[in-house]
Amino acid sequence: MGFMDTALNQELIAAARGETEVDLLLTGGSIANVLSGEIYRSDVAIFKGRIAGFDCCSAARVLDVSDKILAPGFIDGHVHIESSMVTVPEFARAVVPRGTTTVVADPHEIANVWGETGIRYMLRSSRNLPLNVFVMLPTCVPATNLETAGANLGADALAGMIQDDGVLGLAEVMNYPGVIFRDPVVLKKLSLAGGRPVDGHCPGLSGRDLSAYVSAGIQSDHESTSIDEAREKVRSGMYIMLREGSAAKNLLDLLPLVSSHNSSRFLFVSDDRHPADILSEGHIDFMVRTAIEQGLDPIVALQIASFNAAQCFGLRDLGAIAPGYRADIAVLDDLEHPDVVRVIKDGRVVAEEGELIARLPEQVRPEHESMRIGPLGPKSFEIRAAEGPARVIGVVPHQIITRSLRLLPKTVAGKVVSDPERDILKMAVIERHKATGNVGLGLVQGTGFARGAIATSVAHDSHNIAAVGVSDEEMLDAVLAVKKMGGGLVAVAGGRTLASLPLPVAGLLSEGYMRDVAEEIAECIDAAHELGSKLEDPFMTLSFLCLPVIPELKLTDRGLVDVGEFRLVGMFGEA
Amino acid sequence: MGFMDTALNQELIAAARGETEVDLLLTGGSIANVLSGEIYRSDVAIFKGRIAGFDCCSAARVLDVSDKILAPGFIDGHVHIESSMVTVPEFARAVVPRGTTTVVADPHEIANVWGETGIRYMLRSSRNLPLNVFVMLPTCVPATNLETAGANLGADALAGMIQDDGVLGLAEVMNYPGVIFRDPVVLKKLSLAGGRPVDGHCPGLSGRDLSAYVSAGIQSDHESTSIDEAREKVRSGMYIMLREGSAAKNLLDLLPLVSSHNSSRFLFVSDDRHPADILSEGHIDFMVRTAIEQGLDPIVALQIASFNAAQCFGLRDLGAIAPGYRADIAVLDDLEHPDVVRVIKDGRVVAEEGELIARLPEQVRPEHESMRIGPLGPKSFEIRAAEGPARVIGVVPHQIITRSLRLLPKTVAGKVVSDPERDILKMAVIERHKATGNVGLGLVQGTGFARGAIATSVAHDSHNIAAVGVSDEEMLDAVLAVKKMGGGLVAVAGGRTLASLPLPVAGLLSEGYMRDVAEEIAECIDAAHELGSKLEDPFMTLSFLCLPVIPELKLTDRGLVDVGEFRLVGMFGEA
Repeated sequence: MGFMDTALNQELIAAARGETEVDLLLTGGSIANVLSGEIYRSDVAIFKGRIAGFDCCSAARVLDVSDKILAPGFIDGHVHIESSMVTVPEFARAVVPRGTTTVVADPHEIANVWGETGIRYMLRSSRNLPLNVFVMLPTCVPATNLETAGANLGADALAGMIQDDGVLGLAEVMNYPGVIFRDPVVLKKLSLAGGRPVDGHCPGLSGRDLSAYVSAGIQSDHESTSIDEAREKVRSGMYIMLREGSAAKNLLDLLPLVSSHNSSRFLFVSDDRHPADILSEGHIDFMVRTAIEQGLDPIVALQIASFNAAQCFGLRDLGAIAPGYRADIAVLDDLEHPDVVRVIKDGRVVAEEGELIARLPEQVRPEHESMRIGPLGPKSFEIRAAEGPARVIGVVPHQIITRSLRLLPKTVAGKVVSDPERDILKMAVIERHKATGNVGLGLVQGTGFARGAIATSVAHDSHNIAAVGVSDEEMLDAVLAVKKMGGGLVAVAGGRTLASLPLPVAGLLSEGYMRDVAEEIAECIDAAHELGSKLEDPFMTLSFLCLPVIPELKLTDRGLVDVGEFRLVGMFGEA
Repeated sequence: MGFMDTALNQELIAAARGETEVDLLLTGGSIANVLSGEIYRSDVAIFKGRIAGFDCCSAARVLDVSDKILAPGFIDGHVHIESSMVTVPEFARAVVPRGTTTVVADPHEIANVWGETGIRYMLRSSRNLPLNVFVMLPTCVPATNLETAGANLGADALAGMIQDDGVLGLAEVMNYPGVIFRDPVVLKKLSLAGGRPVDGHCPGLSGRDLSAYVSAGIQSDHESTSIDEAREKVRSGMYIMLREGSAAKNLLDLLPLVSSHNSSRFLFVSDDRHPADILSEGHIDFMVRTAIEQGLDPIVALQIASFNAAQCFGLRDLGAIAPGYRADIAVLDDLEHPDVVRVIKDGRVVAEEGELIARLPEQVRPEHESMRIGPLGPKSFEIRAAEGPARVIGVVPHQIITRSLRLLPKTVAGKVVSDPERDILKMAVIERHKATGNVGLGLVQGTGFARGAIATSVAHDSHNIAAVGVSDEEMLDAVLAVKKMGGGLVAVAGGRTLASLPLPVAGLLSEGYMRDVAEEIAECIDAAHELGSKLEDPFMTLSFLCLPVIPELKLTDRGLVDVGEFRLVGMFGEA
């Protein structure tokens, strides 16, 4: 906690002393005091959005919280809000009733589409919400030079934003080879941080390479998958973000590492959590419950969920219930299996029984286009046949890695065509940021489609439009349907749209409710299943078939990428 | 840890990876890893004063630390270096071999003499030492308006220094009534902190007043004397500084409060530690040993001694042994009763077996006078007798409080004189900053002097010259001897100086070795005992007889102070 401003402090001091009325008194509950590491009976007095103390002379409003536990509002230490596929206010509507009052967001996805404009849109969308949204500036846009992203976020662009309100530091430095091999551009970006936090991302990094990465001033990692890996990172000085996303789940694996001597080095983060999981399981509250079920002391779970993240990011007036701190409180029903029954943000009750009751501001309208596509026709998807076997992307169910296969494709009149019988389908990635006209073409085995096509504008990390289908015509239909919606997910067959989810904001976010988005996603997936796919979420799989930093063979708008060799390769030839 | 500068990071990353030679490899020892809360076998590689990692390909120098424990260099979170009565380099010579590599200093005493100049002298004296010296700016100079200090350090003066190199924030806000009653000057000073740390000082403050004080952004307290008091302060959000000074000792009383859930909220501090105690018992190392003897887990004791203080003050690259951190290491011989056998500062061995081996820079010569005294003669100490009993300061042995007594003084020819038979002596406080000619006169009971006089220029908080004696002539001799030395301690009798300690820097600090200072203090005390005093340290007692913020009756250059009423009072009359 630090001094705020003279006027506020002056009033707050008077209210704390009981000279003036406080705004709200919470009576009858217990405090989860993450500072003293205790849970005990105490009232809490609130004035002008701040904790004034533990009693008062008089209060404008008294709220009975008997038998409830007052915990500091939860903090998500690392989240890509875009993964929730809704705007920031709608994200807030979903997570605030779950007790989350602060998130540290990395707008990596939207930055890949709109660059600086996307980051500023997220910052603007974060204003006047019952949720503190802090932004870490994406450091790896574009992720590679093997694809066309919507922006190239260089050191100069980052320098222009690093001091902005709401910006905390630099987001996950995924380019760890760039760090340890001292790429001048990467070091230049790192140098912008000054004393500000810099998050890491270094799966499997160990030994001297880990020391090298950490000695660049990188403070955290959320990619550990084993106790040994996380232990080494804690010893090396990193905060360990216990991640429980939708795809990547590490909480249960890493929890046994948390001890009474090191617990301050852990945070909870969601990273990427999809609408259905947020709505059904929850957000940070889910991690708190899970950790307690696994035997973690409740007060330690609550420290990890709040104060530790505040410390990690230097948020001096967040993460605890003590005088001067912002009055962000999650009211819990019990400690064994804590559900959040009420949420107080800046001293106001903003959620009750899982529903947001605070009014959200009007949605910020982005003024930028998302679908700048070159001329497109059925011929855009033509692949000229050649001698010998073709490189084919082999889907590995439930994983984002792929296999690089060599198979003889089906050809018709000198053209490669989809071959549903052998489950080898054509896939296309259509550049959509700069109307370059780039269309990357490839073959994929393992999607299971027997008819129709699907397409999506959520396609990591450059978020061009990815499509897969049994005919060029249906692929074109799908892509044009996505374009028409201004971005989104679609399943088509025989000239008919079976299901769709419009994502008009940057081709990534809906402007609707998370609940509706979750339903529409489910409909899209159902439609894809009707078209024959056996994949759990064919859209998600398709999305990751474009990510050229994960092995082995991927497709971008520029063509097939051999990830091991980190270069573009032709479909035929060069064994 | 944060990114430092591109050139250094670039080299450090290469060294950490093992591409280049490191400067030093410590082999065979164990790390006390305060981050992971473990102690385990590991080498430590050092490059350009930073930790590079835990192994290397080659090292310019290998140092065998077999069977030793490598702990992060200790941090003293709150110290008045002036209490050690030596200059900053000589303080470093004494504490660095004890494992202290960082101190957070509050130059409150010298600021009372020289104001801004004194603070800048301390900052200048702190350069190029094998000790990090950070300064917190004194907030309460002068301590009261009932005395003449050498400076009035207002908000403007503080504003001019708050951003200086080496300045961390604002030092102990002793004026807690000024905070809770919202004195505009106090709030203005607090507002300078911005996000910087502000230390507290609030003995006994509790309940709403404590909440009010903390809500002003004050982060710490070192004045708790009981578990209950400290518990309430931890709950309220304060860091608790476990103090083991020479006069005030709270470590044993507060240690039982430290638990595995709250230990991160505690620091070790020395506050005021005198030369003899530093030399015989030690510094922070003494507190570590004491805490471990009392049953505290050694790794927790070491966390309290290093990382916790670094966190409290936002010192991101101090307090741990991990890549990128400054290579400040205390090498311990064991964990049960750890003695510091070697100290590494910024990667260089600076102390061995209790002796500093690093070269200290030349002493900084202060260019300022300390003894600006108005005209003085035997008549300066005359007290005209009046009717009735006089106010007499009653010494309470071993305490800094006094009693306010009413006794009939001895008079000769219409003047009040010292009366050694009843142990009621004359005392004088001579203003020495501005040559105002102010001489405060009083009577004190309980010093025990049978002959002679003593005087000192260390006299809290304004550090005017205080003298007590059996005759005006000998008091004058003592004061003039102090003046001649440019400040210091002296015992005189019958026109002869029996013992003296010159303190030529601001009348507070010697320029000699701490060992010599300790010996000369002992000689002065011995001489005072020969003169009849039974007090353990009559100079220290005399020094606190001037402190007008501690009850009941005190003497300043402006006269007697009734501390309860917080005003100047005459010696006679007004019952």
